[in-house]
Amino acid sequence: MSEDVSMNDLTDRLRGAPAMLAIWDGAATLRAMLRVEAGLARACAAQGVIPASAVPAIERACQTAALDAEALKEAAALAGNLAIPLVKQLTAAVAREDAEAARYVHWGATSQDIIDSATLLQLRAAFEQIDAGLQTLASALARQARLHRDTVMAGRSWMQQALPVTLGLKLAQALDAVERHRQRLAETRARVLRLQFGGAAGTLASLGAQAPAVAAALADDLGLPLPALPWHTQRDRVAEAGALMGLIIGTLGKLARDIALQAQTEVGELREPAAPGKGGSSTMPHKRNPVGCAAILSAALRAPQLVATLLSAMVQEHERALGGWQAEWDTLPELAILASGCLSNAAQIIAGLEVDAARMRRNLESGGGQMMAEAVMLALGAQAGRLQAHGWVEEAVQQAEARGLPLLDVLAADARIARYLSRPRLAELLSPDHYTGQSQAYVDAVLASSSNGKTHG
Amino acid sequence: MSEDVSMNDLTDRLRGAPAMLAIWDGAATLRAMLRVEAGLARACAAQGVIPASAVPAIERACQTAALDAEALKEAAALAGNLAIPLVKQLTAAVAREDAEAARYVHWGATSQDIIDSATLLQLRAAFEQIDAGLQTLASALARQARLHRDTVMAGRSWMQQALPVTLGLKLAQALDAVERHRQRLAETRARVLRLQFGGAAGTLASLGAQAPAVAAALADDLGLPLPALPWHTQRDRVAEAGALMGLIIGTLGKLARDIALQAQTEVGELREPAAPGKGGSSTMPHKRNPVGCAAILSAALRAPQLVATLLSAMVQEHERALGGWQAEWDTLPELAILASGCLSNAAQIIAGLEVDAARMRRNLESGGGQMMAEAVMLALGAQAGRLQAHGWVEEAVQQAEARGLPLLDVLAADARIARYLSRPRLAELLSPDHYTGQSQAYVDAVLASSSNGKTHG
Amino acid sequence: MSEDVSMNDLTDRLRGAPAMLAIWDGAATLRAMLRVEAGLARACAAQGVIPASAVPAIERACQTAALDAEALKEAAALAGNLAIPLVKQLTAAVAREDAEAARYVHWGATSQDIIDSATLLQLRAAFEQIDAGLQTLASALARQARLHRDTVMAGRSWMQQALPVTLGLKLAQALDAVERHRQRLAETRARVLRLQFGGAAGTLASLGAQAPAVAAALADDLGLPLPALPWHTQRDRVAEAGALMGLIIGTLGKLARDIALQAQTEVGELREPAAPGKGGSSTMPHKRNPVGCAAILSAALRAPQLVATLLSAMVQEHERALGGWQAEWDTLPELAILASGCLSNAAQIIAGLEVDAARMRRNLESGGGQMMAEAVMLALGAQAGRLQAHGWVEEAVQQAEARGLPLLDVLAADARIARYLSRPRLAELLSPDHYTGQSQAYVDAVLASSSNGKTHG
Amino acid sequence: MSEDVSMNDLTDRLRGAPAMLAIWDGAATLRAMLRVEAGLARACAAQGVIPASAVPAIERACQTAALDAEALKEAAALAGNLAIPLVKQLTAAVAREDAEAARYVHWGATSQDIIDSATLLQLRAAFEQIDAGLQTLASALARQARLHRDTVMAGRSWMQQALPVTLGLKLAQALDAVERHRQRLAETRARVLRLQFGGAAGTLASLGAQAPAVAAALADDLGLPLPALPWHTQRDRVAEAGALMGLIIGTLGKLARDIALQAQTEVGELREPAAPGKGGSSTMPHKRNPVGCAAILSAALRAPQLVATLLSAMVQEHERALGGWQAEWDTLPELAILASGCLSNAAQIIAGLEVDAARMRRNLESGGGQMMAEAVMLALGAQAGRLQAHGWVEEAVQQAEARGLPLLDVLAADARIARYLSRPRLAELLSPDHYTGQSQAYVDAVLASSSNGKTHG
Repeated sequence: MSEDVSMNDLTDRLRGAPAMLAIWDGAATLRAMLRVEAGLARACAAQGVIPASAVPAIERACQTAALDAEALKEAAALAGNLAIPLVKQLTAAVAREDAEAARYVHWGATSQDIIDSATLLQLRAAFEQIDAGLQTLASALARQARLHRDTVMAGRSWMQQALPVTLGLKLAQALDAVERHRQRLAETRARVLRLQFGGAAGTLASLGAQAPAVAAALADDLGLPLPALPWHTQRDRVAEAGALMGLIIGTLGKLARDIALQAQTEVGELREPAAPGKGGSSTMPHKRNPVGCAAILSAALRAPQLVATLLSAMVQEHERALGGWQAEWDTLPELAILASGCLSNAAQIIAGLEVDAARMRRNLESGGGQMMAEAVMLALGAQAGRLQAHGWVEEAVQQAEARGLPLLDVLAADARIARYLSRPRLAELLSPDHYTGQSQAYVDAVLASSSNGKTHG
Repeated sequence: MSEDVSMNDLTDRLRGAPAMLAIWDGAATLRAMLRVEAGLARACAAQGVIPASAVPAIERACQTAALDAEALKEAAALAGNLAIPLVKQLTAAVAREDAEAARYVHWGATSQDIIDSATLLQLRAAFEQIDAGLQTLASALARQARLHRDTVMAGRSWMQQALPVTLGLKLAQALDAVERHRQRLAETRARVLRLQFGGAAGTLASLGAQAPAVAAALADDLGLPLPALPWHTQRDRVAEAGALMGLIIGTLGKLARDIALQAQTEVGELREPAAPGKGGSSTMPHKRNPVGCAAILSAALRAPQLVATLLSAMVQEHERALGGWQAEWDTLPELAILASGCLSNAAQIIAGLEVDAARMRRNLESGGGQMMAEAVMLALGAQAGRLQAHGWVEEAVQQAEARGLPLLDVLAADARIARYLSRPRLAELLSPDHYTGQSQAYVDAVLASSSNGKTHG
Repeated sequence: MSEDVSMNDLTDRLRGAPAMLAIWDGAATLRAMLRVEAGLARACAAQGVIPASAVPAIERACQTAALDAEALKEAAALAGNLAIPLVKQLTAAVAREDAEAARYVHWGATSQDIIDSATLLQLRAAFEQIDAGLQTLASALARQARLHRDTVMAGRSWMQQALPVTLGLKLAQALDAVERHRQRLAETRARVLRLQFGGAAGTLASLGAQAPAVAAALADDLGLPLPALPWHTQRDRVAEAGALMGLIIGTLGKLARDIALQAQTEVGELREPAAPGKGGSSTMPHKRNPVGCAAILSAALRAPQLVATLLSAMVQEHERALGGWQAEWDTLPELAILASGCLSNAAQIIAGLEVDAARMRRNLESGGGQMMAEAVMLALGAQAGRLQAHGWVEEAVQQAEARGLPLLDVLAADARIARYLSRPRLAELLSPDHYTGQSQAYVDAVLASSSNGKTHG
Repeated sequence: MSEDVSMNDLTDRLRGAPAMLAIWDGAATLRAMLRVEAGLARACAAQGVIPASAVPAIERACQTAALDAEALKEAAALAGNLAIPLVKQLTAAVAREDAEAARYVHWGATSQDIIDSATLLQLRAAFEQIDAGLQTLASALARQARLHRDTVMAGRSWMQQALPVTLGLKLAQALDAVERHRQRLAETRARVLRLQFGGAAGTLASLGAQAPAVAAALADDLGLPLPALPWHTQRDRVAEAGALMGLIIGTLGKLARDIALQAQTEVGELREPAAPGKGGSSTMPHKRNPVGCAAILSAALRAPQLVATLLSAMVQEHERALGGWQAEWDTLPELAILASGCLSNAAQIIAGLEVDAARMRRNLESGGGQMMAEAVMLALGAQAGRLQAHGWVEEAVQQAEARGLPLLDVLAADARIARYLSRPRLAELLSPDHYTGQSQAYVDAVLASSSNGKTHG
């Protein structure tokens, strides 16, 4: 074995989509911070705060400086954050080219301005990916929901067969939630993506009267709107972004749980799409493991606690925190990475979902009609009273089960029931196809309101 | 000791505001569930699904039935939820008056419809209180921010004095966050408050063709808008509501932490308002404990994990979950209760905040001017280069500290510095009043954009 | 509806065992606090710190005083804890009988001493119940593991059938974990159950030279060993107790998850024991819901976050915290209550577990022998090389599935395989009974090392 | 900027100690997995399950094979874990040298055996480091506690000065907790460090009758004791290890919080030791930031949620989980890394703690004697009744504060008080040195019971 690969590197792709991992990796993080430093130099120069002549050298160093990563990591632990040693290395790099320009590096800013604004640049890119991921997933869900609008299967409550639904309904429910997430994302984006720039105590005092103009110019340069005031001490934006990721992951966890349940050997209704090298077992050749679902469910176990960390971290002391701010650094990226992995896995699973409609039907029928007992009970209840009907039907179900008889036979043989319902009527009531209720109407409603439903109709 | 009082009862008011506790207590919960049952009867009758004659008896029982709480609690544990035994007791109560009407209790609904929709009725009331609480707090913050717009105090980073800010700025930062919470609440309310009504598997199959009309009538009756489809399996609405509470509590936790830090004996800048019986010590007569801050900080420790529970619980199996749904029952109310307690405490603390502006000034000055080193460093840096200036000023600070001298004297005595800055200029630079930067402008901006700022201006 | 019942009251028995609820209810909490106050009076009197004549009146009031619960709750919110108003009411009650004795109520103690030591008295009782619960469960698991030592069923990985195991093995695995919890409980009990008594700042200064003797006497009176020093500021004992509950609940969550999975309609291998009123559906007479599993799984979703709260709360400021201590108050009892509910549900489920061994066998066989592919693959691999064998067997499995043939036929027909393994040998390899490996040996090993295994053998 | 550095790499040393990071990095993880594969080959050969001739090639490949990390990462995402592609690469590497030997790679094992046992090898090394870290910290705490046994300072409750304590007492409290952690670690180590080896479903079926002997040989080879049965499905050991890390981090969080509070500019009693590059500000030369405390507090915000993840993940399905197992992979290492970082920071901070005893004294006196009000109140209470005394002293405190008078003057001037206590007696009562209670005795007790106290006495 040769190179030193970090643990997180090894499992990276089990957790996140490559494009999202690229947004948050170390090099990209440093690039984002240097992007802010370069923007700051331009903004200060534009307002006459620093000489325009200093800008080119700073810009060049921000783009091409060879950083000493090892020294950065070492110094960051002593300094307490990455910005302090980065500014030192940057200043030295500028000085090597233009000693005068080096005076003006990081002018007026504090470490938190650089780190927070860089994080927001990364978060902006992450939001774009998540939005795209939600759209791709919505599109796949819409297509499959339409396709399986009428594919009857058992609805299950308490993990027991309850009443028929259609697969399309289940997918439409997920699509409906995904559309809400897109709405949330739009709201969150508009509220959260804001420049952080306040200087050492959030007052921009060191920029004097030029402060508002420099801040506006920097906001413009980075494409991050200027907030009413710096938010270094108020972390609701960061926690809101994380909570949104947690909500998305929760929805996908539910989707994955259901698919995994339907993919069980004994259920066999759904399967993740096959792919070379995917989901095989090292020892059991017959296995086809729901690997994508597992990755999503693993994320769904971790994400809630990561959100809790961001919420806990909101209690930050005064004008810069002792612990709370630092706790965000690894947590927000991890949430974005997990969300991307979940979206990517979910989109692949849904797009290529293998559906065994015949097995769904067999499973439905395997209960010997007992699942349709409600239909009988309600029809009977309308005439004989609900509690009465409930009791009679419960007895019939138990008898059918105990004696291994079709429920229809037992019901038709019960004089109390036969008084109200004929055998043909009972047979009709026991057919699942006649008892999917609003399943299809709900699918249609969701497709109609979803842009994906409309577009891909 | 006589009566049996539950532990949570005893600490209720340490956790929540009385009006919020009243929304979620057991009696109110049952009332909300019965409210849904009555509405359901009316909706079914209006659509001809059940006879109109059944409605009055059901309505009366929903309002006046004497429930056996002990039996309810016992049966709920066996049944797995409260709705099943409640429906049984309700049906029996209706039957005592009108046996025919009893047939039509709970028609077409499932337990989850009743419990979820009742919870939403309670959540609607909770949102109203939280909105009012946010407004009250915003108003108090706006008043104090205006009042202390120019009250200079030390800004602190890493819990060390950094640069001057004004108390108004700190309060305006909180106000700005509170205004964002109001915006979030408006968005969340519009998305979350939706009727849950789907029957046993979310298809309303038992209502046949009348299902859409009954659902619409019930939505109308309860004042809960009808969603595109039932959300029994998609819990993002519940988790979103909880996450919002968590965000609010996080902001108030930060506020409380800062006030508690400023209320320390050695800092003495702020104090919670006094009240008879409040914050005294059983043994130490000189103590005035920040009891309100403690209650908020306790909530801020608990709320993130409660949000995590709701997010974890989103992974619910199929058409009714095994564990996830049940985990919401005590969690969402507790979050609303904690949010109400925090808002109530915060509003009281801010409204009556005792501010010792003189102590703030003394604390600022106690550092011998070292806190203003940045101002000197920047003025010097503009002429001598930033790194150079940083080094010289750092030396001066260390010397001042080591020798117990005023920083002004040391700076003025340093020839390297004196070359660029005169003693009067140094004195000016060392005055905190001249170095609050944008503090006041930010206060004004927040007040201008906050409705409270405008109203109470 | 009449009385005011709290929400938590209504769901109490869904969450906890009655005996555990009784330990932590409000009345019991106050009794425990008064128990500490009475013990303190006796301890002080025994060391001559207060007059012996004061003790009887204090003891009587601690046992019989009619407390005003409403006033207590109101005052607790202002005072910040329950002890301050309780001491006031107690002092007043004593004074009504003996004004002189009233002077000596709460002598030398602080609120935290009373609350923490009372909590420890309650925790001691909780530990006893949990220990008994673990023993009852271990006994039930041992009995069923022995009974089903040879009941062959499908082992499942990734929720796919993998290889045969026995039901006894699954239960023995749980038993093994329960035995570890009993060991942990013994260790935790010995470390955690300690008197908390330190006065206002943990120095017992107000008791002067008598402090050690009074503390020892109080420890003796309450039966709580004296620690090396007060632990008011060091909360690892509280968090450790909570973490243990979390570990126990986690194990039971796994047990419940597996049983619920095996109880699915399509799997049908296990069922919770039936009981009148248990697990029925309000609308679906054929349902038998795994209500006990749901209660456990709900607790398993909540407990991890409650443990996290206790761990977060450990960061307590100085000699009494602002938030951290208070966050423990509702959290530790809830964990004990959830643990008791889980233990009680698990013991009932295991003791009366309905096992359908025939269905287990049918499920095993339903895969057409594919599950035994590993046995074939390994026997083949020993001769033909592992990767080679893996490939051939994988092909055969796919072919069998695609063509709906028994795997045996496909394997026997494959010349590459037939070269190494005869059809009878293949048939033997495909029989699950011959491929349970160490299942039974492991059951025996666990039973041998478990006291329950031995006793009930 | 050149190389691609991962985000976690960049902040690694802000989170963990280098030696602990080295245990868990990617290369070390692969090495540990290959260590298990090599041990497995030896164990199988020793029992005659595979030919002894296969071992050397496998051993060599495990030590020297050039792995393709990129391919590993890619394939792991498809396969669902690292072991599957690693075994493939390993087998190929062996085959390049000895095609026959390649047949016997990974014999009888499943992915989880390799991953879990490798993790345990890493955890064993982590426990060693944590034990060493606890010892180093205990030793530093013992030395400082002895040194500052009599250094009087304000004890603070609710972040208000309460009564005098000594710095030694505070440190002894932490030492006492650290000693408990060492005891816990010893218990946890003995319970947790166990071989995981069960094959595809935990029965070792593929090893037939040789299974017990191979398992014993492998346990021996790896130095991981053999458990009664495989623990692949029972994760209490993993969660227990994580919970212990959480408890340790919680204790250090409390220590860091207190030091950070005492390091505030306005308190100025303690400072982290200085080091070049440590804790400086990029803009404020006068700052000396408590960087070590911040790192600990950041970990203390994150660790509780990571423990919650491990507890949540315990609910694993059947014989291999879908999500729960996977959620452990990044979580347990992160807890160990955070624990190491906290221990390392705490040891450095304590060893070099800068103590300003004079400032402690000044802070104590700054309250004008009000903090000693309890002493007066108690002495007075012994004669005049506790409630009476409380009232009089409270009045005096308020008067002293309102009029800016020394408390002694006000007390001595109050006729009600003067009747019982002379001015000299009042002066004595108001001296903090006479009112540290058992502070020193507790320090002595902890030092006596701690091995560090004894050794370094």
